[in-house]
Amino acid sequence: MSGGVKRVAILGSTGSIGQQALDVIRTLSGRFEVLGLAGGKNLKLLQRQIDEFQPKVFYSSIEPDFRCGGEFLSMEQIASHPEVNLVIVATSGKVGLGPTLAALRLGKSVALANKETLVMAGELVIAEAEQHQAQILPVDSEHSAIWQCLQGEGNRLQRLFLTASGGPFYRYSQSQLSQVTVEQALHHPTWKMGKKITIDSATLMNKGLEVIEAHWLFSVPFEDIEILIHPQSIVHSIVEFVDGSMKAQLSSPDMRLPIQYALCYPERLRNPELPQLDLSKLKSLEFESVDYGRFPCLKLAMDAGKSGGTYPAVLCAADEVAVELFLSHQISFLDIAPLVEETLERHQGISQPSLNEILQADAWARECIAQIRNRGNV
Amino acid sequence: MSGGVKRVAILGSTGSIGQQALDVIRTLSGRFEVLGLAGGKNLKLLQRQIDEFQPKVFYSSIEPDFRCGGEFLSMEQIASHPEVNLVIVATSGKVGLGPTLAALRLGKSVALANKETLVMAGELVIAEAEQHQAQILPVDSEHSAIWQCLQGEGNRLQRLFLTASGGPFYRYSQSQLSQVTVEQALHHPTWKMGKKITIDSATLMNKGLEVIEAHWLFSVPFEDIEILIHPQSIVHSIVEFVDGSMKAQLSSPDMRLPIQYALCYPERLRNPELPQLDLSKLKSLEFESVDYGRFPCLKLAMDAGKSGGTYPAVLCAADEVAVELFLSHQISFLDIAPLVEETLERHQGISQPSLNEILQADAWARECIAQIRNRGNV
Repeated sequence: MSGGVKRVAILGSTGSIGQQALDVIRTLSGRFEVLGLAGGKNLKLLQRQIDEFQPKVFYSSIEPDFRCGGEFLSMEQIASHPEVNLVIVATSGKVGLGPTLAALRLGKSVALANKETLVMAGELVIAEAEQHQAQILPVDSEHSAIWQCLQGEGNRLQRLFLTASGGPFYRYSQSQLSQVTVEQALHHPTWKMGKKITIDSATLMNKGLEVIEAHWLFSVPFEDIEILIHPQSIVHSIVEFVDGSMKAQLSSPDMRLPIQYALCYPERLRNPELPQLDLSKLKSLEFESVDYGRFPCLKLAMDAGKSGGTYPAVLCAADEVAVELFLSHQISFLDIAPLVEETLERHQGISQPSLNEILQADAWARECIAQIRNRGNV
Repeated sequence: MSGGVKRVAILGSTGSIGQQALDVIRTLSGRFEVLGLAGGKNLKLLQRQIDEFQPKVFYSSIEPDFRCGGEFLSMEQIASHPEVNLVIVATSGKVGLGPTLAALRLGKSVALANKETLVMAGELVIAEAEQHQAQILPVDSEHSAIWQCLQGEGNRLQRLFLTASGGPFYRYSQSQLSQVTVEQALHHPTWKMGKKITIDSATLMNKGLEVIEAHWLFSVPFEDIEILIHPQSIVHSIVEFVDGSMKAQLSSPDMRLPIQYALCYPERLRNPELPQLDLSKLKSLEFESVDYGRFPCLKLAMDAGKSGGTYPAVLCAADEVAVELFLSHQISFLDIAPLVEETLERHQGISQPSLNEILQADAWARECIAQIRNRGNV
């Protein structure tokens, strides 16, 4: 498809990644045709996007109060639309799962910015992609970095190092962590992102979810994936090859770059809107081992990933609920990890689950947290 | 040739790079057959190498005082030997030029560790390689890093950043530089190398020569090649692509890694002898712009590269003589740059020179320095 116009559908177009994907498409005009847009509850923004890009099909999670020329379809129908050849899945939560599987089954490329899809159902998703020779194009900066570093290298990867800024609280003591407010947690030092992922970055749960994604995307055993705290968020990840040589990908912390890489792959295009990195002004890039002790969410995620089956789905659901509880001031920052941990401990996992079993595990986890909370412990 | 046995000739086998190439070949036994060895004046070492590797053909720059089963041939004959398919050019100075051109003309791959070849005759060498579809495999750690980062990337390079440790004197004041002894200059902080290149690293001439090599190897205009001082010598160079994304190659400062990469290309092989890099122990990687003012050799080299024609050959010859004069305590460290500069100023360059004109420029430069010194200024 190199050089041709890509016909894209964006699921989650009103979210942070969706808006930035439209920014990239706007700048690289002529390269893309926006065929479908699916937004959440921000109808005002969705309407503006529809007015600008005139998609053939659209969706919103609440009934739209506007009319437009496009046809209202479900996200799965949009992802399956015969004219679409690239689906950008930028929704949050498990709603991305069905449309992703639908697109892959039809051999369409999926630019994947939704974490839950691979965390909850990595085995199923990768199997569908392989069976239908559909490409999964990672959008996350870390996975994009690894993917970029693997270009032209075949299968000679030895280890992956996912970098983590450490979030706003990496140097906090346990007693400082116990005082963390929602407002503090929403203020990430290097990245501008949605609320859920910002809290997950502060607990390092986000990095644990990324480890599970990397495991599936690059077929790497968990024991060969390491985390490096790198506060500057300039090196987005590092690949070590069998000869001991390493490659790192570097850029300003701006999601438009990995988004553009996924949308344009295998091409790289000039984009004057993207920030350029001035290496001589960086002074220093720092790296250190991660402290699993103070950030238990990271270990919970890695253990759930290793256990496999329905455990990662339970992890996702429990974390989603716990973060919502924190954001609505019902639990404290340090309550998030124990709530997720107890849910995982109570779970009876199923290996090689079907999609239905995965969704049942998700529902079970939400019910389980409600029970734990009713018990009054948290 | 992937997977097959490569039949190699090593020119400069008794030098630092030659010995390390044999270390790699020894470790990766079964992958290589050493068909030819060419050493300098260290006959004792050459004899040991011949005893161990039993090459069919060999050369030494002085008459050997030993007998062996191999045939004594010139370096050009060894590089042209019909059974050789990979020539490692690890000689120092202009003696590598003829054998390199001979090998390329026959379509053989050349693993190039000799700086003068591309600096003196880049245009000729690249033209021969292209005409005969022969591969030039860079061995220098910086060029290997760039080459590794360009794998799978096609022609989407925007800028190159060559890293430089800065050598032992990067923080020295002008008055400290005027006191530098030969012994101090031979003590490089991060790399173990031959004497000439160690002095060139201290003056930063070496980095200037590498800029000229990078210009030819990767077809990059001089204005798109930058130098970054990086004291840790872990990031061996950085490539910036048209979308602003950068890739860096990292490894311990050990020449066996880039040597092995060139020898095994396009494969990467496990080698338990190579040091592994522990990123979490690095703590910090520092970068800063280079100070051209205090290290005039760098600017002289870049200007000679931009002028082209016979100027880079004059630069090489003048630097070689100046470094010899410093090593034999005849001039001071700070005399090196002015001597090279005056030689370049006196030169009447020829553009698109033939090999003969290049060698004449080399001879002219040596004669010119003798005249400058006879005049008694330096």
